[in-house]
Amino acid sequence: MTALLGHNFINGTRSAAGSVSLHSLDATTGEALPLTFMEATRDEVDAAALAAAHAYPAYRTTTALQRATFLDAIADELDALGDEFIAMVCRETALPPGRIHGERARTSGQMRLFAQLLRRGDFYGARIDRALPDRQPAARPDLRQYHIGLGPVAVFGASNFPLAFSTAGGDTAAALAAGCPVVFKAHPGHMATAEWAALAIIRAAEKTAMPAGVFNMIYGGTVGAWLVQHPAIKAVGFTGSLGGGRALCDMAAARPEPIPVFAEMSSINPMLVLPEALNARAEKIAAELAASVVLGGGQFCTKPGLVLGIASPQFEHFLDRLGQLIQAHAPHTLLNAGGLCNFSDGLGRLASHPGMQHLAGHVQQGNQAFPQLYSADVSLLLDGDPLLQHEVFGPMLVAVTVADVAQLKQAVHSLQGQLTATLIADPGDFTAFADLVPLLEHKAGRLLINGYPTGVEVSDAMVHGGPYPATSDARGTSVGTLSINRFLRPICFQNYPDVLLPDALKDANPLGLMRLVDGVATREAI
Amino acid sequence: MTALLGHNFINGTRSAAGSVSLHSLDATTGEALPLTFMEATRDEVDAAALAAAHAYPAYRTTTALQRATFLDAIADELDALGDEFIAMVCRETALPPGRIHGERARTSGQMRLFAQLLRRGDFYGARIDRALPDRQPAARPDLRQYHIGLGPVAVFGASNFPLAFSTAGGDTAAALAAGCPVVFKAHPGHMATAEWAALAIIRAAEKTAMPAGVFNMIYGGTVGAWLVQHPAIKAVGFTGSLGGGRALCDMAAARPEPIPVFAEMSSINPMLVLPEALNARAEKIAAELAASVVLGGGQFCTKPGLVLGIASPQFEHFLDRLGQLIQAHAPHTLLNAGGLCNFSDGLGRLASHPGMQHLAGHVQQGNQAFPQLYSADVSLLLDGDPLLQHEVFGPMLVAVTVADVAQLKQAVHSLQGQLTATLIADPGDFTAFADLVPLLEHKAGRLLINGYPTGVEVSDAMVHGGPYPATSDARGTSVGTLSINRFLRPICFQNYPDVLLPDALKDANPLGLMRLVDGVATREAI
Repeated sequence: MTALLGHNFINGTRSAAGSVSLHSLDATTGEALPLTFMEATRDEVDAAALAAAHAYPAYRTTTALQRATFLDAIADELDALGDEFIAMVCRETALPPGRIHGERARTSGQMRLFAQLLRRGDFYGARIDRALPDRQPAARPDLRQYHIGLGPVAVFGASNFPLAFSTAGGDTAAALAAGCPVVFKAHPGHMATAEWAALAIIRAAEKTAMPAGVFNMIYGGTVGAWLVQHPAIKAVGFTGSLGGGRALCDMAAARPEPIPVFAEMSSINPMLVLPEALNARAEKIAAELAASVVLGGGQFCTKPGLVLGIASPQFEHFLDRLGQLIQAHAPHTLLNAGGLCNFSDGLGRLASHPGMQHLAGHVQQGNQAFPQLYSADVSLLLDGDPLLQHEVFGPMLVAVTVADVAQLKQAVHSLQGQLTATLIADPGDFTAFADLVPLLEHKAGRLLINGYPTGVEVSDAMVHGGPYPATSDARGTSVGTLSINRFLRPICFQNYPDVLLPDALKDANPLGLMRLVDGVATREAI
Repeated sequence: MTALLGHNFINGTRSAAGSVSLHSLDATTGEALPLTFMEATRDEVDAAALAAAHAYPAYRTTTALQRATFLDAIADELDALGDEFIAMVCRETALPPGRIHGERARTSGQMRLFAQLLRRGDFYGARIDRALPDRQPAARPDLRQYHIGLGPVAVFGASNFPLAFSTAGGDTAAALAAGCPVVFKAHPGHMATAEWAALAIIRAAEKTAMPAGVFNMIYGGTVGAWLVQHPAIKAVGFTGSLGGGRALCDMAAARPEPIPVFAEMSSINPMLVLPEALNARAEKIAAELAASVVLGGGQFCTKPGLVLGIASPQFEHFLDRLGQLIQAHAPHTLLNAGGLCNFSDGLGRLASHPGMQHLAGHVQQGNQAFPQLYSADVSLLLDGDPLLQHEVFGPMLVAVTVADVAQLKQAVHSLQGQLTATLIADPGDFTAFADLVPLLEHKAGRLLINGYPTGVEVSDAMVHGGPYPATSDARGTSVGTLSINRFLRPICFQNYPDVLLPDALKDANPLGLMRLVDGVATREAI
């Protein structure tokens, strides 16, 4: 096992000024691994935030091409992490090697996609309104707009994606692409994994001559609150629980200078199984849905947690079949003991409610999670009971049978904000249920048909976001290139001479950008 | 004088359930006009928010062209308001008729610009990533993204722009363009003006067959808090004081479902007068700057409140001349008695600080504001004293003399967030002071050269925003077409059949939009 230093990453060096040491755990056995990590002190948190602030002016003014080279270098370093790294991630998370291989490719691919975005240049949002000196009653000045990085960003990674939503994950990639230095708080569930990834980023930063404080990482628990409250931090990215995310939002809003928090939190990802689809392929849908619910131990933000169908013998049969499949599925070792505990607590809350019925799943025992299927009376949704609205993180699903189309709409209307909402539908359903679509738009960031939401493509058109409590700000996404917008702000230059304008806005259009010039999209020089 | 009903506007009808009546005042004399307005009750506030929520599904799904027609109709109605209207606005605000004629044209022009934006369609942000069924190791689904209106928006207008930043002002235009119904809280300083404008909007809504609750308006004071706390409201636009804006932000952040607040609040709009420009045209700069400070009684968010120069006989002479001009300027009747009171209080705070020196301006007396010039020791900025950071709304300016270029940069660095930052510079200054530009970018939303910030063009490239406390969210602008983004959120469709997709995302591109298809901007069908 490669010796890891376990010190905080601050301004390109390592620091261990504190006295509290943290242990990485084997997720399968719960035993402490022979690796210790030093919790950051308050001074170290300050130093990390200030290092990012100090790096900001230089990093922000690197060219987009330089940042693209940096992100590509991170991608190469991630890809070069070997079998020992994969084994360590698996040990800390109980996720299988195949998944981690795939997640590493996703994570390096994500960095490369942001590098492409930087080379494409549309993130600048370049707009030019040329002077109209003869306009009456007053001349129009020359006005030019582009976007710059907001400032140092604090990122909190997720337990369930130790690579793709963690140290070198989506929020870090988006912030670095935007020109924002990052202070990352390592997740206590995979600190060794975090250290390997941080080392990869630091190597890439050194190879591409980025400023020392462009990436910093701290270990610990309460360090997160200090970080969010530090005046140098200008935005926060978070993926995790509703409680954790909301606490950060409240902290950020109470600062002397409030800052935006982009927290991806809680979603039950409703699936609506429509009649024609059910008639045509109930068995296939049941098999696919069961597989989606138990995939990765159900530990995905986009795991289907609620399935809705209209009362019929077909839907009853479908639920029977779903129950058989879920009953037959093997138990799953979750990411950590706390996760199993939360899962059991969540099931307990469901089981103790008189409106709930347990349909399938072995009694929880030992240190693994058995998949579960419940049914809930639709009144729980219609009467505003919060029980079903709360995500239960793990391999479980709640089925709700509605009386008819009208009640289906009422049930959808009663849902809180979601990351995803899915229709399982055949063409015969499209017409009959077309007016569900605008309703689903109000509730979720991503709408699927005949797919399962657990796969989240990293691309230009992806939205991994949605109304509260799915996220803290429905206007953002934490996956895909649009996520860069969370960390950018617009600047306008009025009557600036060409020599003082950024390249994105110079007359000659040296970056070859598509720009909005007097309201028309063009790549022409002006 | 046309009789005004003075009732709240709720769901296309008028409502006066309360018992508290409010009086419009003549801004010049302070006397109550024979017009009363009924403060909304809690039930009426709820009804207004619910009317907007009820209108949202229908209004949100109007086509962009339908909304463009609506906005154009509002513009026409505003232009048709006659001399009696202009006289009323002047009476309520003490602003001169010429200014109100100009502001009405700006306000209707703003509506028409948003109508153009809707016809252009780039606000959709349409993106398509086509399916890659053969991709290894996993197929890519078809993904399509566009933007929809966030939901009902609460808008709080400004006292200083009774038309352009009020009932039918920029925030209302942006929200309506985005597909968001509006509940407007009328400013108590110009309630009759607000009623005329609301009636114009309602006539336009009826003519273009918009849903009844698309625009609502309530009168009163505390009604604003109820409005921001109402669960149906999904975002807030505000222009006003730091105290008022921050209170709304805190309220919105503390809701069970927090919502974004876009508050434009406090800015001292620094002007940096550089040596070559001073050598070349000190007299002209002094005259222009003095005119900009007293324009409209200094009651602009972008009024220059701070002028910085490097110590030299020329800068001393410049300040002398500036003092003469400001001393000679006539006093100004402010928008209301409260404004004069705040102005006097602000001057009092400056005058009582040992680091301040009064350079020019008559002693305040009577009910008008006399323009004032102060100088401040640079240590007030460098040592973090908050005194100069606070906007004093009215015709006043503070001059700060710095020792050299290095201290000029330190002084700029010490500033809080600003709406604007201006360089008065000749080409000879550009090279010597080029590295001021990135520093100014960190501080402000709009950077000017050789202009005065009080003119805020309504266009595509304008940014009327900036870091806190200039606004509550530096990522937004409250003037110009980009301001629509504050009220939009992205939606992604995965594997949706063409028939269920919105027109913006259909294969054939029936709206003729510029779309990002597989990372390439194109108007082609797919």
